[in-house]
Amino acid sequence: MSHTQPDLYEQLTSSERLFEGKIINLRRDEVLLPNGRTGMREVVEHPGAVAIVPVTTDGSIILVRQFRHPIGRIILEVPAGKLDPGEDPADCAVRELAEETGFTANKLRKLTSMYTTPGFSNEIIHLYLAEDLIESDKQPDDDEFIHTEVFTPEQIRKMIASGELCDAKSLVALCLAGI
Amino acid sequence: MSHTQPDLYEQLTSSERLFEGKIINLRRDEVLLPNGRTGMREVVEHPGAVAIVPVTTDGSIILVRQFRHPIGRIILEVPAGKLDPGEDPADCAVRELAEETGFTANKLRKLTSMYTTPGFSNEIIHLYLAEDLIESDKQPDDDEFIHTEVFTPEQIRKMIASGELCDAKSLVALCLAGI
Repeated sequence: MSHTQPDLYEQLTSSERLFEGKIINLRRDEVLLPNGRTGMREVVEHPGAVAIVPVTTDGSIILVRQFRHPIGRIILEVPAGKLDPGEDPADCAVRELAEETGFTANKLRKLTSMYTTPGFSNEIIHLYLAEDLIESDKQPDDDEFIHTEVFTPEQIRKMIASGELCDAKSLVALCLAGI
Repeated sequence: MSHTQPDLYEQLTSSERLFEGKIINLRRDEVLLPNGRTGMREVVEHPGAVAIVPVTTDGSIILVRQFRHPIGRIILEVPAGKLDPGEDPADCAVRELAEETGFTANKLRKLTSMYTTPGFSNEIIHLYLAEDLIESDKQPDDDEFIHTEVFTPEQIRKMIASGELCDAKSLVALCLAGI
C-alpha cells in the first residue's frame, strides 16, 4: 500500500547501529521524506511478544503483578513474554502462560496483533484469549518475580475505569476478549 | 505499593547513559533483584504523549493515515503526538488535534493514561475523547506527512476485528471511547 501513496512514504538512505542489547537494539536511520528533505528516525528493535488473557472455568481472569523498572512501579498486566527466535506466536503464548501462571489452556484463540509504539519501535505483540484452563505441573520460572492474582470481569472493568489497569497490551487484550 | 512487596521490588544500583536522541534516550541500569542477584535493564526514555479520539457532530471518527518507519508500513491511528517539555497533557491534546486534523473540540474528556511498553520504556500516553468538533483555521504542520480520513463507528469496529487497526494506543482509545 505504501508505494501507492508516495506523499506518505519515506525511503531509507542510510542506517547506523547504535546499541545491541539483551532485549532491544537501537539504530538511527536516515530517510528521504516525501517533500525531498532528509529526516532521522530512531528505531528500537524488539523481537516481538505475546500476551494472553487467561480465563478460568468460572469466568475469572488471571493477571500478573510485577515490578517494571522503566516506570518504577508495580503494575498489573496480562501474562506476556517475548518471542524466542523463530518461535510461533501461538506456541509462545502456551509457553508463557505456563511459565507465568502454571496453567495450560485447552482453547487458545488469537485476538489480534498490534504495534505498541510504531513511532519509535518495531515491537509487535500477538494477543490471545486462553480458555478451559487446566493446571500444569510446570512451575513459574525462577527468574520471574511475579505474583499471579485472580479477578472477576466486574473487578477488571472497575480497574480499567479507575486507571489502575494501565498497561497497553493488557487493556487491548481485555477489551477484545469482551471483558 | 512497591515497598510493601519486597519480593517484587528491584533496586537501582548503577546507571549508564548510552544514547541521547531527538525523540528517545537510552540507558542501561543495573538493579538488585528480589533474590539478591543483579540484573541489567535496558530503558528507553520517552517524553510521553497524548492520543485523541475525535468524534464529529454526526458521530464519525477522524483517523490519520501515516507511514511509520520503524515498522515499514502505512497504518491508521488516532491523532497523537509527543508532549512538549512541561506541557499539560490536555493542552497537548488540543494542540495535536488541531495540528493533525485542523479541528478543535468543545468537549475534551480524559479516557485514561497508559504505559505502551513498561518492559523497556517509560513512555506514557494520555488518552482523550474529543467531541463537538469545530473546524479551526489552523493548517496541519508542514512536516507532518499524514492523511486524515473519516470513518463510521461500524467501519472502525470492522477494522478492529480484521486487524487493520493495529496500533495499541488507537485500539485502547477507541475501546474506551465506546466505539
